[in-house]
Amino acid sequence: MPLGDRLRVFDRYASLVDVRLRNPRWVIEHLTAASLQGAGSRGNSQFVEDEGIEPRFRARLSDYRGSGYDRGHMAPASNHKASQQAMDATFTLSNTCPQVGEGFNRDYWARFERWVQSCTKQYDDVWVVTGPLYLPRPVAPGAKDWVMQHPMLGQAPHLMAVPTHFFKLILAEKKETGGKKSTVAAAAFVMPNCPIAESDPMTAYAVPLSALEEAAGLVFFPKLIGDAERGTVDAAALLWQARGRKALLQGGEKHQPVLLEGPVSRNALPPAKGKAAAGRPTTPIGHMCDSVSCVLPAKEFWKTTKTVKNPRSSKSLGA
Amino acid sequence: MPLGDRLRVFDRYASLVDVRLRNPRWVIEHLTAASLQGAGSRGNSQFVEDEGIEPRFRARLSDYRGSGYDRGHMAPASNHKASQQAMDATFTLSNTCPQVGEGFNRDYWARFERWVQSCTKQYDDVWVVTGPLYLPRPVAPGAKDWVMQHPMLGQAPHLMAVPTHFFKLILAEKKETGGKKSTVAAAAFVMPNCPIAESDPMTAYAVPLSALEEAAGLVFFPKLIGDAERGTVDAAALLWQARGRKALLQGGEKHQPVLLEGPVSRNALPPAKGKAAAGRPTTPIGHMCDSVSCVLPAKEFWKTTKTVKNPRSSKSLGA
Repeated sequence: MPLGDRLRVFDRYASLVDVRLRNPRWVIEHLTAASLQGAGSRGNSQFVEDEGIEPRFRARLSDYRGSGYDRGHMAPASNHKASQQAMDATFTLSNTCPQVGEGFNRDYWARFERWVQSCTKQYDDVWVVTGPLYLPRPVAPGAKDWVMQHPMLGQAPHLMAVPTHFFKLILAEKKETGGKKSTVAAAAFVMPNCPIAESDPMTAYAVPLSALEEAAGLVFFPKLIGDAERGTVDAAALLWQARGRKALLQGGEKHQPVLLEGPVSRNALPPAKGKAAAGRPTTPIGHMCDSVSCVLPAKEFWKTTKTVKNPRSSKSLGA
Repeated sequence: MPLGDRLRVFDRYASLVDVRLRNPRWVIEHLTAASLQGAGSRGNSQFVEDEGIEPRFRARLSDYRGSGYDRGHMAPASNHKASQQAMDATFTLSNTCPQVGEGFNRDYWARFERWVQSCTKQYDDVWVVTGPLYLPRPVAPGAKDWVMQHPMLGQAPHLMAVPTHFFKLILAEKKETGGKKSTVAAAAFVMPNCPIAESDPMTAYAVPLSALEEAAGLVFFPKLIGDAERGTVDAAALLWQARGRKALLQGGEKHQPVLLEGPVSRNALPPAKGKAAAGRPTTPIGHMCDSVSCVLPAKEFWKTTKTVKNPRSSKSLGA
């Protein structure tokens, strides 16, 4: 059989690399309050090519050079301070995608990553899947016909795609304690690869899990999340999204972000009749925003901590 | 782990389905002179959706309807006459891509498929991998910047990609007989998804195997074709391509087909020093065109056979 995508397993994350578009397809990591602690420092890390992939298929440092795009981490460096080796591993290009720096990777997206970390305060185990999306758009505003269009970086024929959007899927579990049953929550977010206004509520970027799955061509945690659980999460996501979008409109934002449509399968799969995932019939899955405050930390939150400088301002740019 | 591409195994072919772009990624089939014979008839076959893939991820009949594109077979129906069941199986949408009908699927590509069949006269076993390509192009003629751009069919958010090109990789083996050693040959061809002039020599569409692999993000037959074998096939492909392109220019074709660049790895991997594939050090791999006449059958070759009507003129169109 032809050999395509490459599964790469690193210290603290795994990445499935799409060697056609030279981007990861998804990156998965596991976070706990304890795993976020450690002495690893990004000051000691360097971006490196992934030598586990043949040169002709791997993302290259030179693809980013002079492109104006950041080498944006999918599994964030700051999630893997446990050891310097774990942090270094997040700097391989099998964990990065071309991301807009100002207003996105260094701002809104960084705040979003920090929010994900905060979920470990309330949940014992947090699984995060992060990756790029290539979303088609109408050929003209309101047109019926759709087109896929995105830039490619590097030297032909060895080119690297610039994703139009990025997603995070978060699945969190609080273990059973003192007679209290375990609880599980999930949420999916999709953000455009462009500057996002500081004041945008993050809930405006909440999307139904099924919509993300259909856009990404992926099914997340199929053994845990069946149609019934997905239906519940989807319904809640649409409520949170509506609330967030309303705030956007009230704020009169000039930048109307590209948002995913509701799920195509929504009508076909009412939660009440959906099939529950095998093996976990007693654990309903709620939406993260129903149990955790879905509000981003302040802009430049790092200024209030020990780090005064934006940690990714200079090193991320593929200059 | 997230569940992505789906491997679908049918009677006489297998398909890896890209559920993001709703096209097969590749389709593999095995041909012999005997396997081409049989009573299967396409008149008895109907296009069907692949029920082995969830509705929200599968290609749909409605995606093609009214699009103007043919439901183009990757494994051709006429390769699988062995039984009606085998032929029917080629009509599932996990074996089709949106192809331009007039001048391509019903003409040049059909002649190319017939040529592939003819390889079974000289070779005992013929393996064929067929699939779509999405090739980026310069943003403007001669520009340094590249863009990926192709139409998407269907109803958003459930959209199906229209490939820009199609490839076939052919690997053929003649078994050892009467003291004569076995011989193996390979060749890769890439054709644009648009009408191709009848007179274009097929060798103009020969491409280095490595160039195809790098564009498709696939490695074909990695256990059989090592760097050394690939280097030999690549060098021959470039010679055949140059010959074919020269004929194009002499003919003063108005339609200059989009052709793949030479392989990026060509200079880095001289055939003499390349690593041979493990296990088959004694079987060098030649280029198909060095042993089989790489000339397409005549336009409308089916008129000279029992079938008078173009077999795919009405049924393929997703009307």
